[in-house]
Amino acid sequence: MSARAARAAIAALSEGAELRTWSLIVTVFGDMARAPGAEVPGPVLSALTRAIGIRPEAMRVALHRLRKDGWIASRRAGRVSHYFLTDAGRAQSDTATARIFARHPPAAQSWHVAIAGPQNPPARLALDGAMAAGYVTLAPGAWLGAGPAPETLDPGLFVLDGTTLRLPGWLSEALMPPALTQAYGEFDIVLARVAALLAGGFDSLSPTDRTAIRVLLVHRWRRLVLRHADLPDRFFAADWPGVRVRDRVHSLLDRLGHPSLADVADAIPA
Amino acid sequence: MSARAARAAIAALSEGAELRTWSLIVTVFGDMARAPGAEVPGPVLSALTRAIGIRPEAMRVALHRLRKDGWIASRRAGRVSHYFLTDAGRAQSDTATARIFARHPPAAQSWHVAIAGPQNPPARLALDGAMAAGYVTLAPGAWLGAGPAPETLDPGLFVLDGTTLRLPGWLSEALMPPALTQAYGEFDIVLARVAALLAGGFDSLSPTDRTAIRVLLVHRWRRLVLRHADLPDRFFAADWPGVRVRDRVHSLLDRLGHPSLADVADAIPA
Repeated sequence: MSARAARAAIAALSEGAELRTWSLIVTVFGDMARAPGAEVPGPVLSALTRAIGIRPEAMRVALHRLRKDGWIASRRAGRVSHYFLTDAGRAQSDTATARIFARHPPAAQSWHVAIAGPQNPPARLALDGAMAAGYVTLAPGAWLGAGPAPETLDPGLFVLDGTTLRLPGWLSEALMPPALTQAYGEFDIVLARVAALLAGGFDSLSPTDRTAIRVLLVHRWRRLVLRHADLPDRFFAADWPGVRVRDRVHSLLDRLGHPSLADVADAIPA
Repeated sequence: MSARAARAAIAALSEGAELRTWSLIVTVFGDMARAPGAEVPGPVLSALTRAIGIRPEAMRVALHRLRKDGWIASRRAGRVSHYFLTDAGRAQSDTATARIFARHPPAAQSWHVAIAGPQNPPARLALDGAMAAGYVTLAPGAWLGAGPAPETLDPGLFVLDGTTLRLPGWLSEALMPPALTQAYGEFDIVLARVAALLAGGFDSLSPTDRTAIRVLLVHRWRRLVLRHADLPDRFFAADWPGVRVRDRVHSLLDRLGHPSLADVADAIPA
Protein backbone atom coordinates (compact mmCIF):
# COMPACT_ATOMS: atom_id res chain seq x y z
CA MET A 1 0.00 0.00 0.00
CA SER A 2 2.72 2.41 1.01
CA ALA A 3 4.97 1.38 -1.92
CA ARG A 4 2.11 2.14 -4.28
CA ALA A 5 1.57 5.54 -2.63
CA ALA A 6 5.31 6.18 -3.02
CA ARG A 7 5.12 5.32 -6.74
CA ALA A 8 2.17 7.67 -7.16
CA ALA A 9 3.92 10.46 -5.24
CA ILE A 10 7.07 10.02 -7.35
CA ALA A 11 4.96 10.08 -10.53
CA ALA A 12 3.19 13.26 -9.37
CA LEU A 13 6.53 14.95 -8.65
CA SER A 14 8.08 13.82 -11.96
CA GLU A 15 5.16 14.59 -14.25
CA GLY A 16 5.97 17.38 -16.70
CA ALA A 17 8.95 18.42 -14.60
CA GLU A 18 11.69 18.07 -17.28
CA LEU A 19 14.03 16.35 -14.87
CA ARG A 20 17.65 16.16 -16.04
CA THR A 21 19.45 13.16 -14.65
CA TRP A 22 22.75 14.97 -13.95
CA SER A 23 20.88 17.74 -12.17
CA LEU A 24 18.92 15.23 -10.07
CA ILE A 25 22.18 13.51 -9.10
CA VAL A 26 23.52 16.90 -8.00
CA THR A 27 20.46 17.15 -5.78
CA VAL A 28 21.13 13.67 -4.35
CA PHE A 29 24.65 14.71 -3.36
CA GLY A 30 23.39 18.01 -1.97
CA ASP A 31 20.80 16.27 0.19
CA MET A 32 22.69 13.10 1.19
CA ALA A 33 26.44 13.54 0.91
CA ARG A 34 27.44 17.15 1.29
CA ALA A 35 29.70 16.60 4.31
CA PRO A 36 33.43 16.36 3.53
CA GLY A 37 34.34 12.68 3.35
CA ALA A 38 30.80 11.53 2.59
CA GLU A 39 30.58 9.03 -0.26
CA VAL A 40 27.62 7.58 -2.13
CA PRO A 41 28.16 3.91 -3.02
CA GLY A 42 27.17 3.06 -6.61
CA PRO A 43 24.42 0.62 -5.49
CA VAL A 44 22.76 3.35 -3.36
CA LEU A 45 22.82 5.77 -6.29
CA SER A 46 21.36 3.05 -8.53
CA ALA A 47 18.61 2.23 -6.05
CA LEU A 48 17.63 5.91 -5.72
CA THR A 49 17.67 6.69 -9.44
CA ARG A 50 15.78 3.44 -10.14
CA ALA A 51 13.12 4.47 -7.60
CA ILE A 52 12.81 7.83 -9.36
CA GLY A 53 12.47 6.07 -12.71
CA ILE A 54 15.83 6.89 -14.28
CA ARG A 55 17.30 4.29 -16.64
CA PRO A 56 20.77 2.88 -15.69
CA GLU A 57 22.32 4.15 -18.96
CA ALA A 58 21.09 7.68 -18.27
CA MET A 59 22.65 7.52 -14.81
CA ARG A 60 25.99 6.33 -16.22
CA VAL A 61 26.03 9.15 -18.79
CA ALA A 62 25.18 11.71 -16.09
CA LEU A 63 27.91 10.44 -13.73
CA HIS A 64 30.42 10.61 -16.58
CA ARG A 65 29.42 14.20 -17.30
CA LEU A 66 29.55 15.28 -13.64
CA ARG A 67 33.02 13.73 -13.26
CA LYS A 68 34.21 15.44 -16.43
CA ASP A 69 32.85 18.81 -15.23
CA GLY A 70 34.64 18.42 -11.90
CA TRP A 71 31.48 18.25 -9.73
CA ILE A 72 32.15 14.76 -8.45
CA ALA A 73 34.96 12.23 -8.31
CA SER A 74 34.94 8.51 -7.57
CA ARG A 75 37.10 5.71 -6.19
CA ARG A 76 36.72 1.97 -6.53
CA ALA A 77 36.70 -0.37 -3.57
CA GLY A 78 36.61 -3.92 -4.90
CA ARG A 79 33.71 -4.12 -7.35
CA VAL A 80 31.90 -1.07 -5.95
CA SER A 81 32.42 2.56 -7.06
CA HIS A 82 32.03 5.27 -4.44
CA TYR A 83 31.14 8.77 -5.57
CA PHE A 84 31.80 12.00 -3.72
CA LEU A 85 31.64 15.76 -4.31
CA THR A 86 34.86 17.52 -5.30
CA ASP A 87 35.76 20.63 -3.27
CA ALA A 88 34.44 22.77 -6.14
CA GLY A 89 31.23 20.72 -6.30
CA ARG A 90 30.77 20.98 -2.53
CA ALA A 91 31.28 24.76 -2.59
CA GLN A 92 28.56 25.18 -5.23
CA SER A 93 26.29 22.78 -3.42
CA ASP A 94 26.76 24.56 -0.09
CA THR A 95 25.83 27.91 -1.60
CA ALA A 96 22.60 26.62 -3.08
CA THR A 97 21.76 24.46 -0.07
CA ALA A 98 21.60 27.37 2.34
CA ARG A 99 18.76 28.86 0.32
CA ILE A 100 17.02 25.59 -0.50
CA PHE A 101 16.72 24.43 3.10
CA ALA A 102 16.00 27.81 4.67
CA ARG A 103 12.70 27.51 6.52
CA HIS A 104 12.26 31.26 6.52
CA PRO A 105 13.10 33.96 4.01
CA PRO A 106 15.99 36.29 4.89
CA ALA A 107 15.04 38.85 7.51
CA ALA A 108 17.27 41.75 6.54
CA GLN A 109 17.29 44.46 9.21
CA SER A 110 18.81 47.02 6.91
CA TRP A 111 19.41 47.80 3.27
CA HIS A 112 21.46 49.99 1.02
CA VAL A 113 20.72 51.60 -2.31
CA ALA A 114 23.66 52.15 -4.68
CA ILE A 115 23.44 54.45 -7.69
CA ALA A 116 25.95 54.81 -10.51
CA GLY A 117 26.90 58.16 -11.98
CA PRO A 118 27.16 58.94 -15.67
CA GLN A 119 29.44 56.30 -17.22
CA ASN A 120 30.64 55.20 -20.61
CA PRO A 121 29.00 51.95 -21.81
CA PRO A 122 31.96 49.64 -21.09
CA ALA A 123 32.27 50.94 -17.52
CA ARG A 124 28.52 50.52 -16.97
CA LEU A 125 28.65 47.01 -18.39
CA ALA A 126 31.46 46.07 -16.01
CA LEU A 127 29.54 47.57 -13.06
CA ASP A 128 26.35 45.76 -14.08
CA GLY A 129 28.35 42.54 -14.04
CA ALA A 130 29.84 43.26 -10.62
CA MET A 131 26.42 44.09 -9.14
CA ALA A 132 24.67 41.06 -10.68
CA ALA A 133 25.55 38.94 -7.64
CA GLY A 134 23.70 39.82 -4.47
CA TYR A 135 21.92 42.96 -5.67
CA VAL A 136 18.41 43.66 -6.87
CA THR A 137 18.34 45.95 -9.90
CA LEU A 138 15.85 48.73 -9.17
CA ALA A 139 16.45 50.67 -12.39
CA PRO A 140 19.34 50.92 -14.84
CA GLY A 141 22.31 51.91 -12.68
CA ALA A 142 20.39 51.63 -9.38
CA TRP A 143 20.65 48.64 -7.05
CA LEU A 144 19.32 47.45 -3.70
CA GLY A 145 21.49 45.32 -1.41
CA ALA A 146 20.82 43.72 1.99
CA GLY A 147 22.59 45.04 5.08
CA PRO A 148 24.83 48.09 5.23
CA ALA A 149 26.94 48.81 2.15
CA PRO A 150 30.17 46.79 2.28
CA GLU A 151 33.46 48.69 2.45
CA THR A 152 34.49 46.94 -0.76
CA LEU A 153 31.66 48.46 -2.80
CA ASP A 154 32.76 50.49 -5.84
CA PRO A 155 33.64 53.95 -4.41
CA GLY A 156 32.15 55.58 -7.51
CA LEU A 157 28.64 54.67 -6.34
CA PHE A 158 26.31 56.97 -4.44
CA VAL A 159 25.06 55.00 -1.42
CA LEU A 160 22.30 55.42 1.14
CA ASP A 161 22.20 52.97 4.05
CA GLY A 162 18.78 52.62 5.62
CA THR A 163 16.16 50.45 7.20
CA THR A 164 12.70 51.40 5.95
CA LEU A 165 11.55 50.35 2.50
CA ARG A 166 8.51 51.15 0.38
CA LEU A 167 8.01 48.48 -2.26
CA PRO A 168 5.83 49.44 -5.23
CA GLY A 169 4.00 46.90 -7.41
CA TRP A 170 6.29 47.29 -10.43
CA LEU A 171 9.22 46.05 -8.34
CA SER A 172 7.35 42.94 -7.15
CA GLU A 173 6.47 42.16 -10.75
CA ALA A 174 10.04 42.63 -11.93
CA LEU A 175 11.37 40.40 -9.15
CA MET A 176 8.76 37.68 -9.60
CA PRO A 177 7.61 37.53 -13.22
CA PRO A 178 4.20 36.01 -14.03
CA ALA A 179 5.72 32.81 -15.49
CA LEU A 180 7.57 32.09 -12.26
CA THR A 181 4.49 32.85 -10.15
CA GLN A 182 2.60 30.37 -12.32
CA ALA A 183 5.30 27.73 -11.84
CA TYR A 184 4.97 28.22 -8.07
CA GLY A 185 1.20 27.80 -8.38
CA GLU A 186 1.56 24.57 -10.33
CA PHE A 187 4.05 23.13 -7.82
CA ASP A 188 1.65 24.10 -5.04
CA ILE A 189 -0.98 21.82 -6.59
CA VAL A 190 1.53 18.97 -7.01
CA LEU A 191 2.56 19.30 -3.35
CA ALA A 192 -1.03 19.15 -2.18
CA ARG A 193 -1.50 15.94 -4.20
CA VAL A 194 1.71 14.40 -2.83
CA ALA A 195 0.68 15.23 0.73
CA ALA A 196 -2.73 13.61 0.12
CA LEU A 197 -1.18 10.51 -1.48
CA LEU A 198 1.21 9.97 1.43
CA ALA A 199 -1.15 11.00 4.24
CA GLY A 200 -1.10 8.32 6.90
CA GLY A 201 1.54 6.32 5.02
CA PHE A 202 4.68 8.24 5.91
CA ASP A 203 5.78 5.77 8.60
CA SER A 204 5.74 2.72 6.35
CA LEU A 205 7.78 4.22 3.47
CA SER A 206 11.05 2.41 2.71
CA PRO A 207 14.26 4.43 3.21
CA THR A 208 14.82 4.35 -0.56
CA ASP A 209 11.32 5.64 -1.42
CA ARG A 210 11.54 8.19 1.37
CA THR A 211 14.84 9.45 -0.04
CA ALA A 212 13.66 9.36 -3.67
CA ILE A 213 10.65 11.51 -2.77
CA ARG A 214 12.88 13.87 -0.76
CA VAL A 215 15.25 14.23 -3.70
CA LEU A 216 12.41 15.03 -6.12
CA LEU A 217 10.88 17.53 -3.69
CA VAL A 218 14.18 19.29 -3.08
CA HIS A 219 14.98 19.20 -6.77
CA ARG A 220 11.77 20.88 -7.89
CA TRP A 221 11.88 23.37 -5.03
CA ARG A 222 15.45 24.24 -5.90
CA ARG A 223 14.50 24.92 -9.49
CA LEU A 224 11.96 27.54 -8.36
CA VAL A 225 13.83 29.15 -5.50
CA LEU A 226 17.10 29.66 -7.38
CA ARG A 227 15.29 31.45 -10.21
CA HIS A 228 14.66 34.63 -8.21
CA ALA A 229 16.44 36.88 -5.74
CA ASP A 230 16.57 35.80 -2.08
CA LEU A 231 14.35 38.40 -0.48
CA PRO A 232 11.82 38.72 2.34
CA ASP A 233 8.31 37.65 1.32
CA ARG A 234 6.95 41.18 1.36
CA PHE A 235 8.96 41.98 -1.78
CA PHE A 236 6.51 39.78 -3.70
CA ALA A 237 2.84 40.23 -4.46
CA ALA A 238 0.34 39.39 -1.70
CA ASP A 239 -1.14 36.58 -3.84
CA TRP A 240 2.25 34.98 -4.59
CA PRO A 241 1.91 31.28 -3.68
CA GLY A 242 5.61 30.97 -2.71
CA VAL A 243 5.03 31.26 1.02
CA ARG A 244 2.54 28.38 1.00
CA VAL A 245 4.81 26.32 -1.28
CA ARG A 246 7.75 26.78 1.08
CA ASP A 247 5.61 25.69 4.03
CA ARG A 248 4.37 22.62 2.16
CA VAL A 249 7.89 21.61 1.08
CA HIS A 250 9.21 21.83 4.63
CA SER A 251 6.20 20.06 6.07
CA LEU A 252 6.67 17.16 3.63
CA LEU A 253 10.43 17.00 4.24
CA ASP A 254 9.81 16.95 7.99
CA ARG A 255 7.35 14.09 7.71
CA LEU A 256 9.60 12.14 5.32
CA GLY A 257 12.55 12.46 7.67
CA HIS A 258 16.11 12.29 6.47
CA PRO A 259 17.35 8.69 5.97
CA SER A 260 21.13 8.35 5.98
CA LEU A 261 23.15 6.74 3.21
CA ALA A 262 23.54 3.73 5.51
CA ASP A 263 19.75 3.49 5.93
CA VAL A 264 19.33 3.35 2.15
CA ALA A 265 22.26 0.96 1.71
CA ASP A 266 20.91 -1.43 4.37
CA ALA A 267 17.51 -1.53 2.70
CA ILE A 268 18.86 -2.59 -0.70
CA PRO A 269 18.01 -6.29 -1.34
CA ALA A 270 21.27 -8.27 -1.44
CA MET B 1 37.85 108.65 4.73
CA SER B 2 35.09 106.24 5.60
CA ALA B 3 32.81 107.54 2.82
CA ARG B 4 35.62 106.93 0.34
CA ALA B 5 36.10 103.38 1.71
CA ALA B 6 32.34 102.86 1.30
CA ARG B 7 32.50 104.06 -2.35
CA ALA B 8 35.38 101.65 -3.00
CA ALA B 9 33.58 98.76 -1.30
CA ILE B 10 30.43 99.48 -3.31
CA ALA B 11 32.48 99.62 -6.52
CA ALA B 12 34.18 96.33 -5.66
CA LEU B 13 30.81 94.67 -5.03
CA SER B 14 29.25 96.11 -8.23
CA GLU B 15 32.11 95.50 -10.64
CA GLY B 16 31.20 92.94 -13.29
CA ALA B 17 28.22 91.78 -11.25
CA GLU B 18 25.45 92.40 -13.84
CA LEU B 19 23.19 93.98 -11.25
CA ARG B 20 19.59 94.34 -12.34
CA THR B 21 17.86 97.24 -10.67
CA TRP B 22 14.52 95.47 -10.09
CA SER B 23 16.35 92.51 -8.57
CA LEU B 24 18.42 94.78 -6.29
CA ILE B 25 15.21 96.48 -5.13
CA VAL B 26 13.80 93.04 -4.30
CA THR B 27 16.88 92.53 -2.15
CA VAL B 28 16.31 95.89 -0.42
CA PHE B 29 12.78 94.84 0.53
CA GLY B 30 13.98 91.39 1.60
CA ASP B 31 16.65 92.85 3.87
CA MET B 32 14.85 95.98 5.16
CA ALA B 33 11.09 95.67 4.91
CA ARG B 34 10.02 92.04 4.99
CA ALA B 35 7.82 92.41 8.08
CA PRO B 36 4.08 92.81 7.40
CA GLY B 37 3.26 96.52 7.58
CA ALA B 38 6.83 97.64 6.84
CA GLU B 39 7.06 100.38 4.22
CA VAL B 40 10.03 101.89 2.43
CA PRO B 41 9.59 105.66 1.87
CA GLY B 42 10.54 106.80 -1.65
CA PRO B 43 13.37 109.07 -0.37
CA VAL B 44 14.99 106.13 1.48
CA LEU B 45 14.83 103.99 -1.64
CA SER B 46 16.32 106.85 -3.67
CA ALA B 47 19.14 107.38 -1.17
CA LEU B 48 20.02 103.68 -1.17
CA THR B 49 19.91 103.22 -4.95
CA ARG B 50 21.88 106.46 -5.40
CA ALA B 51 24.53 105.14 -3.00
CA ILE B 52 24.72 101.95 -5.04
CA GLY B 53 25.05 103.98 -8.23
CA ILE B 54 21.65 103.37 -9.82
CA ARG B 55 20.22 106.22 -11.91
CA PRO B 56 16.82 107.62 -10.78
CA GLU B 57 15.16 106.72 -14.13
CA ALA B 58 16.34 103.09 -13.78
CA MET B 59 14.81 103.00 -10.28
CA ARG B 60 11.49 104.38 -11.52
CA VAL B 61 11.34 101.78 -14.33
CA ALA B 62 12.16 98.99 -11.89
CA LEU B 63 9.51 100.11 -9.38
CA HIS B 64 6.95 100.23 -12.18
CA ARG B 65 7.84 96.71 -13.24
CA LEU B 66 7.73 95.33 -9.67
CA ARG B 67 4.32 96.90 -9.10
CA LYS B 68 3.04 95.50 -12.39
CA ASP B 69 4.31 92.01 -11.50
CA GLY B 70 2.58 92.15 -8.12
CA TRP B 71 5.78 92.05 -6.02
CA ILE B 72 5.24 95.43 -4.43
CA ALA B 73 2.48 98.00 -4.00
CA SER B 74 2.62 101.66 -2.96
CA ARG B 75 0.58 104.35 -1.27
CA ARG B 76 1.05 108.11 -1.30
CA ALA B 77 1.18 110.20 1.85
CA GLY B 78 1.37 113.84 0.83
CA ARG B 79 4.20 114.18 -1.64
CA VAL B 80 5.96 110.97 -0.53
CA SER B 81 5.30 107.48 -1.96
CA HIS B 82 5.65 104.55 0.40
CA TYR B 83 6.45 101.12 -1.06
CA PHE B 84 5.73 97.75 0.53
CA LEU B 85 5.77 94.06 -0.37
CA THR B 86 2.48 92.49 -1.45
CA ASP B 87 1.52 89.23 0.30
CA ALA B 88 2.75 87.32 -2.76
CA GLY B 89 6.02 89.27 -2.81
CA ARG B 90 6.52 88.69 0.92
CA ALA B 91 5.90 84.93 0.54
CA GLN B 92 8.58 84.67 -2.18
CA SER B 93 10.94 86.84 -0.22
CA ASP B 94 10.47 84.79 2.95
CA THR B 95 11.30 81.54 1.14
CA ALA B 96 14.54 82.89 -0.27
CA THR B 97 15.48 84.75 2.91
CA ALA B 98 15.59 81.63 5.03
CA ARG B 99 18.38 80.26 2.85
CA ILE B 100 20.17 83.56 2.30
CA PHE B 101 20.54 84.38 5.99
CA ALA B 102 21.20 80.85 7.22
CA ARG B 103 24.55 80.90 9.03
CA HIS B 104 24.88 77.15 8.68
CA PRO B 105 23.96 74.69 5.94
CA PRO B 106 21.04 72.34 6.66
CA ALA B 107 21.99 69.49 8.99
CA ALA B 108 19.71 66.71 7.77
CA GLN B 109 19.69 63.76 10.17
CA SER B 110 18.15 61.41 7.63
CA TRP B 111 17.49 61.01 3.95
CA HIS B 112 15.40 59.04 1.52
CA VAL B 113 16.08 57.77 -1.96
CA ALA B 114 13.10 57.45 -4.31
CA ILE B 115 13.28 55.45 -7.55
CA ALA B 116 10.71 55.37 -10.34
CA GLY B 117 9.73 52.16 -12.11
CA PRO B 118 9.42 51.75 -15.86
CA GLN B 119 7.12 54.53 -17.09
CA ASN B 120 5.88 55.97 -20.34
CA PRO B 121 7.49 59.31 -21.26
CA PRO B 122 4.52 61.55 -20.25
CA ALA B 123 4.29 59.90 -16.83
CA ARG B 124 8.03 60.26 -16.30
CA LEU B 125 7.89 63.88 -17.37
CA ALA B 126 5.13 64.59 -14.85
CA LEU B 127 7.08 62.83 -12.11
CA ASP B 128 10.28 64.72 -13.00
CA GLY B 129 8.26 67.91 -12.60
CA ALA B 130 6.84 66.88 -9.24
CA MET B 131 10.29 65.91 -7.90
CA ALA B 132 12.01 69.07 -9.19
CA ALA B 133 11.21 70.89 -5.94
CA GLY B 134 13.11 69.71 -2.89
CA TYR B 135 14.85 66.70 -4.43
CA VAL B 136 18.35 66.13 -5.75
CA THR B 137 18.35 64.13 -8.99
CA LEU B 138 20.85 61.29 -8.58
CA ALA B 139 20.18 59.68 -11.97
CA PRO B 140 17.25 59.68 -14.39
CA GLY B 141 14.31 58.46 -12.27
CA ALA B 142 16.30 58.43 -9.00
CA TRP B 143 16.07 61.18 -6.38
CA LEU B 144 17.46 62.03 -2.95
CA GLY B 145 15.33 63.91 -0.42
CA ALA B 146 16.06 65.18 3.08
CA GLY B 147 14.35 63.57 6.08
CA PRO B 148 12.10 60.51 5.96
CA ALA B 149 9.95 60.09 2.85
CA PRO B 150 6.72 62.07 3.24
CA GLU B 151 3.43 60.18 3.28
CA THR B 152 2.35 62.22 0.27
CA LEU B 153 5.14 60.91 -1.95
CA ASP B 154 3.98 59.18 -5.16
CA PRO B 155 3.14 55.61 -4.05
CA GLY B 156 4.56 54.28 -7.33
CA LEU B 157 8.08 55.09 -6.15
CA PHE B 158 10.45 52.63 -4.52
CA VAL B 159 11.76 54.29 -1.34
CA LEU B 160 14.55 53.62 1.13
CA ASP B 161 14.71 55.77 4.27
CA GLY B 162 18.17 55.96 5.78
CA THR B 163 20.81 57.96 7.55
CA THR B 164 24.25 57.13 6.15
CA LEU B 165 25.34 58.53 2.79
CA ARG B 166 28.35 57.93 0.56
CA LEU B 167 28.80 60.84 -1.81
CA PRO B 168 30.92 60.17 -4.89
CA GLY B 169 32.74 62.87 -6.84
CA TRP B 170 30.41 62.80 -9.84
CA LEU B 171 27.52 63.85 -7.61
CA SER B 172 29.43 66.80 -6.15
CA GLU B 173 30.25 67.92 -9.67
CA ALA B 174 26.66 67.59 -10.83
CA LEU B 175 25.41 69.56 -7.81
CA MET B 176 28.05 72.27 -8.03
CA PRO B 177 29.13 72.72 -11.65
CA PRO B 178 32.58 74.23 -12.36
CA ALA B 179 31.12 77.58 -13.49
CA LEU B 180 29.32 78.02 -10.17
CA THR B 181 32.40 76.99 -8.19
CA GLN B 182 34.32 79.61 -10.16
CA ALA B 183 31.69 82.26 -9.38
CA TYR B 184 32.05 81.42 -5.67
CA GLY B 185 35.82 81.76 -6.00
CA GLU B 186 35.51 85.19 -7.65
CA PHE B 187 33.10 86.41 -4.98
CA ASP B 188 35.51 85.13 -2.34
CA ILE B 189 38.18 87.51 -3.71
CA VAL B 190 35.73 90.43 -3.83
CA LEU B 191 34.75 89.79 -0.21
CA ALA B 192 38.37 89.75 0.92
CA ARG B 193 38.86 93.08 -0.82
CA VAL B 194 35.73 94.59 0.72
CA ALA B 195 36.79 93.43 4.19
CA ALA B 196 40.22 95.00 3.67
CA LEU B 197 38.72 98.28 2.38
CA LEU B 198 36.40 98.61 5.36
CA ALA B 199 38.79 97.27 8.00
CA GLY B 200 38.86 99.70 10.91
CA GLY B 201 36.24 101.91 9.24
CA PHE B 202 33.04 99.98 10.02
CA ASP B 203 32.07 102.23 12.93
CA SER B 204 32.15 105.46 10.96
CA LEU B 205 30.02 104.29 7.98
CA SER B 206 26.81 106.24 7.45
CA PRO B 207 23.55 104.27 7.82
CA THR B 208 22.95 104.70 4.07
CA ASP B 209 26.39 103.37 3.04
CA ARG B 210 26.12 100.61 5.60
CA THR B 211 22.78 99.56 4.14
CA ALA B 212 23.91 99.94 0.52
CA ILE B 213 26.87 97.63 1.18
CA ARG B 214 24.61 95.17 3.02
CA VAL B 215 22.20 95.12 0.09
CA LEU B 216 24.96 94.47 -2.43
CA LEU B 217 26.47 91.75 -0.26
CA VAL B 218 23.13 90.02 0.26
CA HIS B 219 22.28 90.43 -3.40
CA ARG B 220 25.41 88.81 -4.73
CA TRP B 221 25.31 86.07 -2.11
CA ARG B 222 21.69 85.36 -2.99
CA ARG B 223 22.60 84.99 -6.65
CA LEU B 224 25.08 82.24 -5.78
CA VAL B 225 23.21 80.40 -3.07
CA LEU B 226 19.92 80.14 -4.93
CA ARG B 227 21.61 78.58 -7.96
CA HIS B 228 22.23 75.24 -6.26
CA ALA B 229 20.44 72.78 -3.99
CA ASP B 230 20.37 73.52 -0.25
CA LEU B 231 22.57 70.73 1.06
CA PRO B 232 25.14 70.11 3.80
CA ASP B 233 28.65 71.23 2.84
CA ARG B 234 29.95 67.68 2.49
CA PHE B 235 27.90 67.23 -0.67
CA PHE B 236 30.35 69.56 -2.40
CA ALA B 237 34.02 69.12 -3.27
CA ALA B 238 36.57 69.64 -0.48
CA ASP B 239 38.07 72.62 -2.36
CA TRP B 240 34.68 74.32 -2.89
CA PRO B 241 35.12 77.92 -1.66
CA GLY B 242 31.44 78.18 -0.60
CA VAL B 243 32.06 77.53 3.09
CA ARG B 244 34.63 80.34 3.29
CA VAL B 245 32.37 82.66 1.25
CA ARG B 246 29.45 82.04 3.63
CA ASP B 247 31.66 82.81 6.61
CA ARG B 248 32.95 86.01 5.01
CA VAL B 249 29.43 87.17 4.09
CA HIS B 250 28.15 86.66 7.63
CA SER B 251 31.24 88.24 9.16
CA LEU B 252 30.80 91.36 7.01
CA LEU B 253 27.05 91.53 7.69
CA ASP B 254 27.71 91.23 11.43
CA ARG B 255 30.26 94.06 11.34
CA LEU B 256 28.02 96.26 9.17
CA GLY B 257 25.11 95.80 11.53
CA HIS B 258 21.53 96.17 10.40
CA PRO B 259 20.38 99.82 10.22
CA SER B 260 16.62 100.26 10.33
CA LEU B 261 14.58 102.18 7.74
CA ALA B 262 14.31 104.98 10.29
CA ASP B 263 18.11 105.09 10.68
CA VAL B 264 18.51 105.55 6.93
CA ALA B 265 15.61 108.07 6.73
CA ASP B 266 17.06 110.16 9.58
CA ALA B 267 20.44 110.34 7.87
CA ILE B 268 19.07 111.72 4.59
CA PRO B 269 20.03 115.42 4.24
CA ALA B 270 16.83 117.48 4.38
